[in-house]
Amino acid sequence: MPNPKTSNPKISNPKITGFTVDDVRFPTSDQAHGSDAMHGLPDYSAAYIVLETDCDLPGHGLTFTLGRGTELCKQAAEYLLEAHVVGLTLNEIKSDFAGFWRKLTSDPQFRWVGPEKGVIHLATGGVVNAVWDLYAKVENKPLWKLIADMSAEEIVGCIDFRYLTDALTPDQALAILKKNDATAGQRESHLLQHGFPAYTTSAGWLGYSDQRIVQLCQQGIAEGWNHFKLKVGADLNDDMRRAEIMRKTIGPDRKMMLDANQRWDVDQAIEWTNALAKFDPWWIEEPTCPDDVLAHKAIGEGVAPIGIATGEQCQNRIMFKQFLQAGAIQFCQIDSCRVGGVNEVLSIMLMAKKFGIPVCPHAGGVGLCEYVSHLIMIDYIRIGASIESHVAEFVDHLHEHFEHPCVIKNAAYMPPTAPGYSATMKPESVLKYRFPDGEIWKDRV
Amino acid sequence: MPNPKTSNPKISNPKITGFTVDDVRFPTSDQAHGSDAMHGLPDYSAAYIVLETDCDLPGHGLTFTLGRGTELCKQAAEYLLEAHVVGLTLNEIKSDFAGFWRKLTSDPQFRWVGPEKGVIHLATGGVVNAVWDLYAKVENKPLWKLIADMSAEEIVGCIDFRYLTDALTPDQALAILKKNDATAGQRESHLLQHGFPAYTTSAGWLGYSDQRIVQLCQQGIAEGWNHFKLKVGADLNDDMRRAEIMRKTIGPDRKMMLDANQRWDVDQAIEWTNALAKFDPWWIEEPTCPDDVLAHKAIGEGVAPIGIATGEQCQNRIMFKQFLQAGAIQFCQIDSCRVGGVNEVLSIMLMAKKFGIPVCPHAGGVGLCEYVSHLIMIDYIRIGASIESHVAEFVDHLHEHFEHPCVIKNAAYMPPTAPGYSATMKPESVLKYRFPDGEIWKDRV
Repeated sequence: MPNPKTSNPKISNPKITGFTVDDVRFPTSDQAHGSDAMHGLPDYSAAYIVLETDCDLPGHGLTFTLGRGTELCKQAAEYLLEAHVVGLTLNEIKSDFAGFWRKLTSDPQFRWVGPEKGVIHLATGGVVNAVWDLYAKVENKPLWKLIADMSAEEIVGCIDFRYLTDALTPDQALAILKKNDATAGQRESHLLQHGFPAYTTSAGWLGYSDQRIVQLCQQGIAEGWNHFKLKVGADLNDDMRRAEIMRKTIGPDRKMMLDANQRWDVDQAIEWTNALAKFDPWWIEEPTCPDDVLAHKAIGEGVAPIGIATGEQCQNRIMFKQFLQAGAIQFCQIDSCRVGGVNEVLSIMLMAKKFGIPVCPHAGGVGLCEYVSHLIMIDYIRIGASIESHVAEFVDHLHEHFEHPCVIKNAAYMPPTAPGYSATMKPESVLKYRFPDGEIWKDRV
Repeated sequence: MPNPKTSNPKISNPKITGFTVDDVRFPTSDQAHGSDAMHGLPDYSAAYIVLETDCDLPGHGLTFTLGRGTELCKQAAEYLLEAHVVGLTLNEIKSDFAGFWRKLTSDPQFRWVGPEKGVIHLATGGVVNAVWDLYAKVENKPLWKLIADMSAEEIVGCIDFRYLTDALTPDQALAILKKNDATAGQRESHLLQHGFPAYTTSAGWLGYSDQRIVQLCQQGIAEGWNHFKLKVGADLNDDMRRAEIMRKTIGPDRKMMLDANQRWDVDQAIEWTNALAKFDPWWIEEPTCPDDVLAHKAIGEGVAPIGIATGEQCQNRIMFKQFLQAGAIQFCQIDSCRVGGVNEVLSIMLMAKKFGIPVCPHAGGVGLCEYVSHLIMIDYIRIGASIESHVAEFVDHLHEHFEHPCVIKNAAYMPPTAPGYSATMKPESVLKYRFPDGEIWKDRV
């Protein structure tokens, strides 16, 4: 895929000259989409970043939020962009990508209000992802293909190994990547033909009626889905009834996953999950606090063979490292925005590979499915190199706001084809849903 | 200490009617005060909260920051106050203090950008501390005395035990408190006479010259200090020279503590600390990432008998719980602002007691010494009930901006005497240092 624009020398090395960050919110709380045991009325939102350059290629990135709080991520992103990004050329970033990433996450004043977690790390994720989008557009490739074509050394050069070397050294990362090289082409061909397995969360939100669950499961089966997720944790009797309904509707052979969204303490998690064990769940997701490595380990021992899954609120690579070192998770649910963008995701996928744990990304929200459709391709081609027990989340809403929405065929994510990292939102959606001055919000606020 | 104002019925139950939050920054970076291996040029700052009430008693609280990022904590505090605090009476809060705290930390949209960590949790700390300040002022007692006089049940009723019960149940907390009751009066008398042991960090900042270290250590010895902290981690040769200078100056019997401010990976931490072992350090503080329980455990095993200390960037009670459960720390350095205020600090002190680890609070910054001067009294009188191996940080600057600065006598914190939680800043300091419109900043920005 040659870049037709490379006759302009600037196009291979754009300079970042400015940016905009918008607070875009979708009023999903109106219909209980996205409701779970801890997040009653989310308005799925994004701090949406546009990198302006000295050529006609912009970089687009976002970080996903639930409404209130987006304004903080927006401002944090604006500061990071102003202080550490504007004025750099793409080549300056690429030539020491790990160094660029460390600079973003090591601002000597700003890091105190993190470090590498919460608001400022969500902002870092959006900024870093926007840079990758620009990079992929310059190379005229979808992001997954850009990274699929990199040398092992280039990939390792993107990663800040600070705090990781007791679990993964640069040499160990290189060895993982190089071992996969010979067979990468076969896996890429497989993906282009069959895609990467997905599961649906659209059927089991906590706010949905029993009837709606049945109807959505039946519809899912008709569309070819084999994995269904059910939100649990608010009331055991409700959960028992809903799990029975879902299991009956999907039959004994399809997988059912449970998601408690952090509702329990250790003893309660074990008791509640074991009560639901008769409906044969594959995993229990977020049984307790996302910060609690030791609790997840204890719960896993108490509910085996049901697996433990977590990650959507796992704040950074250092927490993922500990979950893996402790044997506390059986499914590694990276989030494309909560950690610091593609660079940090690569380090987590490499650690998951080293510890033999499948990466099953969190998605849904705004733009997460679009991001994930790249990340799983990278993992399968270059890192994890396996599809067994791997399945990526899919939630079917809000894709209509993106220029290049993810594509699902036969319950599988298909490799994106447009250059970039798929986060470009339609300008009319940004205008309409911008908080607080967009058409949707101006009368509500 | 009867409250002379209780003739006005409202004064015993003020209603919170409004608030202001100011971004107050001190240009400490001008003189390398506060410099360490990760925070090159901090401007010690605070998001400063004033709760307005329907009587003449305001509540004052703050959260400590390093400059940039204060604006995010300010806005987060404003949202929490508006959404969850304004309109409540003190009695409504006190009657279910744990429930109030959980509500603040469980905002269904806002928690996504935490949860319970980083910007929004620092803001929670400031808000919660302001409520306690108001409570103590209504009772006409310094905060430490308010809590020293509470029943065990009242103290337990302030704590949200979610995610803690695998380490500490309400009943276990009650048992700890009740066991101490009979001797609490003796410890209070001891504190009123002798205070609580402190150590000084004023002598060993990374940006200070060798000569300045010698001079400040000599001055410290003359003032009666027996514990001195040295910042390390940027350059081993420098650290060897500086540690030798400090040890020679303070002599063999005084304690020297090292603080690496998160600079190292596991192997490097062990190697570097062991190289400095010949200067007989008591603890190594923040040897690596503050999120890394397992790494602290490994480092501790590699450098024993030097103890491991951490906590100033430990994000919440769940991380402290794991540090304690894993035996990863020998000194528990609670921070009065980073976690969600007094309520969460109480839970951490109770867990530290259960696991037999001394609480040695982090202080310095802006207002932290003032807060800590209450917390250590509470810990000694009601919870930890020991002074052996307990020592609280003291840094001698910025106290002049507070109405009731902490008092140090013979290298010990004396119990505060003014009603409240000592965070009331002088109005002229707030005006002068307010960012970006105060006198100090308006010409710089």
